[in-house]
Amino acid sequence: MNQIKRVAIVGGSHGNELTGAYLVKKFQKYPNLINRTSFETLAILGNPKAIVAGRRYIDTDLNRCFTGDNLQTAAITSNYEELRAKEILQILQPKNQEFVDAIIDLHTTTANMGLCIILSDMHPILLNLAANLTAINPLVKVYIHQQPKNSGFLRSLSKLGFAIEVGAVAQGILDAQLFQQTEQLIYHVLNYFEECNQDKLTLVNNTLTFYKSIGMVDYPRNEDGEIQAMIHPQLQFRDYQPLHPGDPIFLTFEDKDILYEGESTVYPIFINEAAYYEKGIAMYLSQKDIIHIGIRFDY
Amino acid sequence: MNQIKRVAIVGGSHGNELTGAYLVKKFQKYPNLINRTSFETLAILGNPKAIVAGRRYIDTDLNRCFTGDNLQTAAITSNYEELRAKEILQILQPKNQEFVDAIIDLHTTTANMGLCIILSDMHPILLNLAANLTAINPLVKVYIHQQPKNSGFLRSLSKLGFAIEVGAVAQGILDAQLFQQTEQLIYHVLNYFEECNQDKLTLVNNTLTFYKSIGMVDYPRNEDGEIQAMIHPQLQFRDYQPLHPGDPIFLTFEDKDILYEGESTVYPIFINEAAYYEKGIAMYLSQKDIIHIGIRFDY
Repeated sequence: MNQIKRVAIVGGSHGNELTGAYLVKKFQKYPNLINRTSFETLAILGNPKAIVAGRRYIDTDLNRCFTGDNLQTAAITSNYEELRAKEILQILQPKNQEFVDAIIDLHTTTANMGLCIILSDMHPILLNLAANLTAINPLVKVYIHQQPKNSGFLRSLSKLGFAIEVGAVAQGILDAQLFQQTEQLIYHVLNYFEECNQDKLTLVNNTLTFYKSIGMVDYPRNEDGEIQAMIHPQLQFRDYQPLHPGDPIFLTFEDKDILYEGESTVYPIFINEAAYYEKGIAMYLSQKDIIHIGIRFDY
Repeated sequence: MNQIKRVAIVGGSHGNELTGAYLVKKFQKYPNLINRTSFETLAILGNPKAIVAGRRYIDTDLNRCFTGDNLQTAAITSNYEELRAKEILQILQPKNQEFVDAIIDLHTTTANMGLCIILSDMHPILLNLAANLTAINPLVKVYIHQQPKNSGFLRSLSKLGFAIEVGAVAQGILDAQLFQQTEQLIYHVLNYFEECNQDKLTLVNNTLTFYKSIGMVDYPRNEDGEIQAMIHPQLQFRDYQPLHPGDPIFLTFEDKDILYEGESTVYPIFINEAAYYEKGIAMYLSQKDIIHIGIRFDY
C-alpha cells in the first residue's frame, strides 16, 4: 500500500469562518499538535486577506477557484482569490515534489450541520475514516457530494481530500465548543492516517450511514431576483431530518406556507446557509443511504 | 399631552442584519400594516448599499454616524455612511417639519438576546412601553444604555427612540420565527403609541426589570491586537444570566480558563456579537435592576 507522506490542513478559505482560521493559527504556533511520525502535516491559512477583512472573500469565492481553467493558465489576473488559488496549489505541490496526499479543508456553516464530513469522492479510505469518526462521535454526519477533480473545490484536488463543515455557527464568531470538537476531530483524522501508514487500520463499523446530494432548492424569488420567502420555522435547524412531500418548506413574507412538492422523502442539508443566499441555494437535498465497508484499503 | 405625529421604523442600518431590512420592505409594500389613525409611520431602509453588498457597512458603521459633528457639517464627504446619515436626517425631519416623534431602529445580533428593547434614555413613555411589552411576551428584555443625543446612534436622535435587537441569529440570514416575533413586537409598539395619543394608556405592570449597562469587556489580545481566547463555553448564549466573580469568562486557544475577576455579580449582554470583534467588545456588562413605573406619561 502507498504511504501518506504529506497532509494539508487548510482553514479560513472563507475569511468569516473563524473556526478553521484560528485552528490553523494554533497549529502553526504548535506544530507538534499535528505532527505524526509517518507523515508531514502542513497548516495553511486559505484566504489571509479575507480573514483580515472579516469577509467570505475579497473578489470571489476561493473555494470555487480550484478549477482546471484557473489553475492551468499562467495568465495574470487581478482577482485576489484566483491568484491565491494558484499560490495554494504551489504550496500543495512544490516544484519537484508530489501533490499532498490528503487535504482537510475546514469550514463552518450557519446551518445546523453538527460535525459534517463532506466527501467529493467515495474513496474506501475516506469511507472507513468517516465510519470511524461517526463511531467515535455521534454528532459526526457524512455528506457525499460527488465532484470531479478541478471542479473548483479545494478538497477535490486530492484523492484523500474532504471538508469538515461544522455548525450552526454565525459568520464572524468563534464558538468555543465547536472549536474544540473540530480540533478533536482533526486529531482523530491524523491518527487514522498514521494507522493507515502503519497498516493498523481496523474496521470499527462495517456499515456507514451517509447523505448523498441529489440537488438543491432556491428561495422563491421575484423577477428582480429578490427572495420572497424564508426557510419555514418547522424546517429551520432540522438538517438531516426527513422532509416529506407536503411538508412546509418556506414561509412567505405574507405568512403563507409553501409546501415541499417533491415526489419522495428527502433529507435537506445546508438549510439557511448565509453564504448561499447569493448562490441561489436555500438548501441542498440529499438521500439517506447505508453503505457496506470492506476491509481492504488501497491508497 | 403632546401628540405623537410621526414614527419612523428603520431597518437594515446594518446591511447583513436581514430581519429589519425585510420587515421594512414588507411595510413599504403593505403600508396599512403600520398605519395608525392618529399618526403617520415611515418605513426606511437604513443602508441600501450595504444591504445589496450583504455587509454591515460599506465604509463605516452607519449607526455610529449620527453624531453632532457629522450631521451639522455641510462638508462633502466621500464616506457612504456619513452621507447616508445626513440623508436619513432629512427624511426624519423634512424642511419646515418637526423631527419624527419616535424612532424604532431594528437590529439583530449573534448574541442570545431574545427580543431586546434598547433604550438610550429612561423616558417614562418608553419605560411603560417596555413594561407593556415584557408583560405581553416574556422573551422581551430591556437594556438601558444611556447615551446623549448626537452620540452617533440613530435611536438617540429622538426622545422616543429605541432599538429592537433580536437574536441569536447569524448575520446574512432570515430566521422566520424571529422575523415574526419582531413583526408582532412592532405592531404592539405602534398600538401603544396609538393608545398614547388617545390617552388610553394603562399600567399593566408597575415595576420593570431591566439591565443597565455598566461597561464592556474586550477579548484577551496579543500585542498585535489578535484575540487570544474565545467566549467560554459556559458563558456562550447565556446573556442576561448572572456572572459571578470567579466564573469562567474566556477559554484560551491553549484550553485554559480565564475567570471573571470583577468584585460583584454582573449580567453580560451582547456576548459574542460578531460585529463587535473589530470594536474590541467581547460583551457588555450590565446590572440587573427594577424600577417603579408611575402613571403619568407626559410627552
